[in-house]
Amino acid sequence: MSTSSPELFVELDRSRPRGLRAQLERSLRDAIRAGRLRPGVRLPSSRALAADLQITRGVVIAAYHQLTAEGYLTSRQGWGTVVNTITVPEGSQRRRPPPAGIRYDFQPGAPDVGLFPHAAWARATRAAMRSLPGRSLGYGDPAGLTELRETLADYLGRVRGVSCEPDDVVVCNGFSHGLSLLAQVLAERGIAVEDPGHPDWREQITWAGASCHPIEVDDEGLRVDRLAASGAGAVLTTPAHQYPTGVALSPGRRTDLLDWARTSGAYVIEDDYDAEYRYDRQPIGALQGVAPDHVVYAGSLSKSLAPGLRLGWLVVPPALREEVVATRARGDRFTSSIIQATVAEFVQRGDLDRHLRRTRRGYRQRRDALIAALRRHLPACRATGISAGLHVLVTLPGGMDATRLAATAARHGILIQPLDRYRACPAAPGRSPALVMGYSRLTPHHIEEGIHHLATILNSDGVTTL
Amino acid sequence: MSTSSPELFVELDRSRPRGLRAQLERSLRDAIRAGRLRPGVRLPSSRALAADLQITRGVVIAAYHQLTAEGYLTSRQGWGTVVNTITVPEGSQRRRPPPAGIRYDFQPGAPDVGLFPHAAWARATRAAMRSLPGRSLGYGDPAGLTELRETLADYLGRVRGVSCEPDDVVVCNGFSHGLSLLAQVLAERGIAVEDPGHPDWREQITWAGASCHPIEVDDEGLRVDRLAASGAGAVLTTPAHQYPTGVALSPGRRTDLLDWARTSGAYVIEDDYDAEYRYDRQPIGALQGVAPDHVVYAGSLSKSLAPGLRLGWLVVPPALREEVVATRARGDRFTSSIIQATVAEFVQRGDLDRHLRRTRRGYRQRRDALIAALRRHLPACRATGISAGLHVLVTLPGGMDATRLAATAARHGILIQPLDRYRACPAAPGRSPALVMGYSRLTPHHIEEGIHHLATILNSDGVTTL
Repeated sequence: MSTSSPELFVELDRSRPRGLRAQLERSLRDAIRAGRLRPGVRLPSSRALAADLQITRGVVIAAYHQLTAEGYLTSRQGWGTVVNTITVPEGSQRRRPPPAGIRYDFQPGAPDVGLFPHAAWARATRAAMRSLPGRSLGYGDPAGLTELRETLADYLGRVRGVSCEPDDVVVCNGFSHGLSLLAQVLAERGIAVEDPGHPDWREQITWAGASCHPIEVDDEGLRVDRLAASGAGAVLTTPAHQYPTGVALSPGRRTDLLDWARTSGAYVIEDDYDAEYRYDRQPIGALQGVAPDHVVYAGSLSKSLAPGLRLGWLVVPPALREEVVATRARGDRFTSSIIQATVAEFVQRGDLDRHLRRTRRGYRQRRDALIAALRRHLPACRATGISAGLHVLVTLPGGMDATRLAATAARHGILIQPLDRYRACPAAPGRSPALVMGYSRLTPHHIEEGIHHLATILNSDGVTTL
Repeated sequence: MSTSSPELFVELDRSRPRGLRAQLERSLRDAIRAGRLRPGVRLPSSRALAADLQITRGVVIAAYHQLTAEGYLTSRQGWGTVVNTITVPEGSQRRRPPPAGIRYDFQPGAPDVGLFPHAAWARATRAAMRSLPGRSLGYGDPAGLTELRETLADYLGRVRGVSCEPDDVVVCNGFSHGLSLLAQVLAERGIAVEDPGHPDWREQITWAGASCHPIEVDDEGLRVDRLAASGAGAVLTTPAHQYPTGVALSPGRRTDLLDWARTSGAYVIEDDYDAEYRYDRQPIGALQGVAPDHVVYAGSLSKSLAPGLRLGWLVVPPALREEVVATRARGDRFTSSIIQATVAEFVQRGDLDRHLRRTRRGYRQRRDALIAALRRHLPACRATGISAGLHVLVTLPGGMDATRLAATAARHGILIQPLDRYRACPAAPGRSPALVMGYSRLTPHHIEEGIHHLATILNSDGVTTL
């Protein structure tokens, strides 16, 4: 902490110069009482405040002295004059307690941010700040920093078979942001989504004013044959690893999907959210690489690195680009240059590749631990989907109520999600009960322990015997 | 740069194991030809790619050898195998040349990012990354990081007389982002704006689906008496320093504005964009401090620090808070945790106060230099508005065409803006021609030189004699 003088706002009526001390006292007292000057806030030195207000220093010293006597202010050695705690008004408690009692968090959707490569990120930040030309800290291109778009075009071509030039890339603040832009641009077409699929995306599409058409998913992925009847002019899909069922879109369906887009002039929004994590083989290439004029490719660092970075990208066909960029500019203008430049460095230095190789090994072990623990402790359950990503679909024996099971588990500190949470129509009959379980944020040991615990609770609780 | 192995996407048909080498060659060749593997991209080592693809290393070596012979790949000492430049297709030129010939940029609206406090920012970044708990890198609160909202509540109370609790603060990506959220939330009310005012804000309000009502500005600021007739249920205003005319809202108008809001149930959006820069006295306090239930306060670091950070804040009355936060969550979810945590550290350490004191001195010198130069070289012009901010309104002698003047100056490398750019109806007759001139990004020496140059051009060019 520094001892230089903080800024302070005070209003004085200079037409009454003789009352300045009383005015200053009243102004500070009112500000403290009303909470505008909050407990612990440090005031400027008497010298600095006198200079700012263009009054004599004696007036400030006298006012501080009076308010200290009244208990509003206090002097701290080596720190100066500080606002006292007068009362602690309702609602101003500084920290909320963390939610208590969560022992095993099997919720899907986020990586283990404990694996975040702090040292490599710090190196990339330093290099980015050194190389960041001054003008990049000014108002920037809504489509993104040139260096980052070049880096992403290289990276996505190399790793995911995406076919693009830097000009095709639009940098955004995560996938959610990208989808909100696309939903606005494509609102009049109506957008089909996968069912089950992420409820947030359905909500976001509707919020943007587009109609949302849920289309069934089976064990080959999206039922592409039902797109035509839906009347939608675009579809949001997760072909590499369907979320949340975990299946890959079959080769036949991939062909059919692109045929539908080409013949009907529709757009495919390819949500490539976790394709970096494929454990048994290389992932299938991006659809975008096959039909770049008909596919909007979307990805982010939220699953591979950390959601807190808020960095994602769209690769946009030429026909949509101008409108997507204009829509982005009319919202928050552009993504923080510091984050953009740091990510460009991070990827160029090979740090993202290194991080992916390291975490891929770790997540695979966690996945294997979950599957083994399920087999051991809950043998009637079945884990399905390809060996990929950060979650698994767990099918329960028929007749079980997954939502009730999740509620019971939560009371014992185990967080699991019923598949019904992802369905557009949860109540439809005849469906197998299932859970969506994430394994990314627990060690293999905790995974084994958590599943064992889950099995014990379920048996002793009498919910059911699995 | 590292020598660890980069990732690469390749598709192989494993049902034909004897053709693997040919398949690998074809796959790489196609990717290079189609531009998915771009010139300069480094391929994985033969050992790493063989392990990834689960094929023998000899197959990879043979394929790389063949493609090197064909000219698609090249070996670089200590760097590995790299994609060659085959042709340079149209549109892939890496750098655009900077706009040439701009010698004096008097455009308003941005600070001098050359003054950005790199060392202090780097210290704050390091401290933020050390203290950032792992969970902050996960999905965060749409309203912002608790630490930053606490810091901003303290700071805004202390420096601007804003009356708020941390829960009232919504962190966003700059003012533009905040306005886009408010325009969505208040769309049905209709939003009045100042005329002249920023054309981007008018456009953003219309884009969000709200009706936009321009209200005249005179030398006391916004014509508050015209609000009632406009039918608008909200108004966007710059009371501390009207943009771009530079006047402060008069005390009487401040009272009338809040009376209008209270009696009609309307909201005032207080754009406090540059109140940190007042050179002759302390700025007048925020309206929000007087009527926190009727005023949405909006500010950012774009003028005080750098637009490239993309960090701003709203202080939102309780009645609007839930909808503002929900609207934000459905866009880009939340602001980068790293930027948020760094700004919290930066402000807590007193670095923002220090930066403001330092730059305030510098900008005051630049302002004084501009006024002196105008007086010396263009004595018929008159600089108006309070001694504040980063720009000045320059009134020209009647009968001059400010737009034509700006075009002539631009041809000589001098960028100035006509006031008409900020008017909702530029063509209205009977108005004094005027320029909006920013002085933030030129040294006093360059300001004097630029204005001298401008005067010479104008006289010799025969545009007019000032």
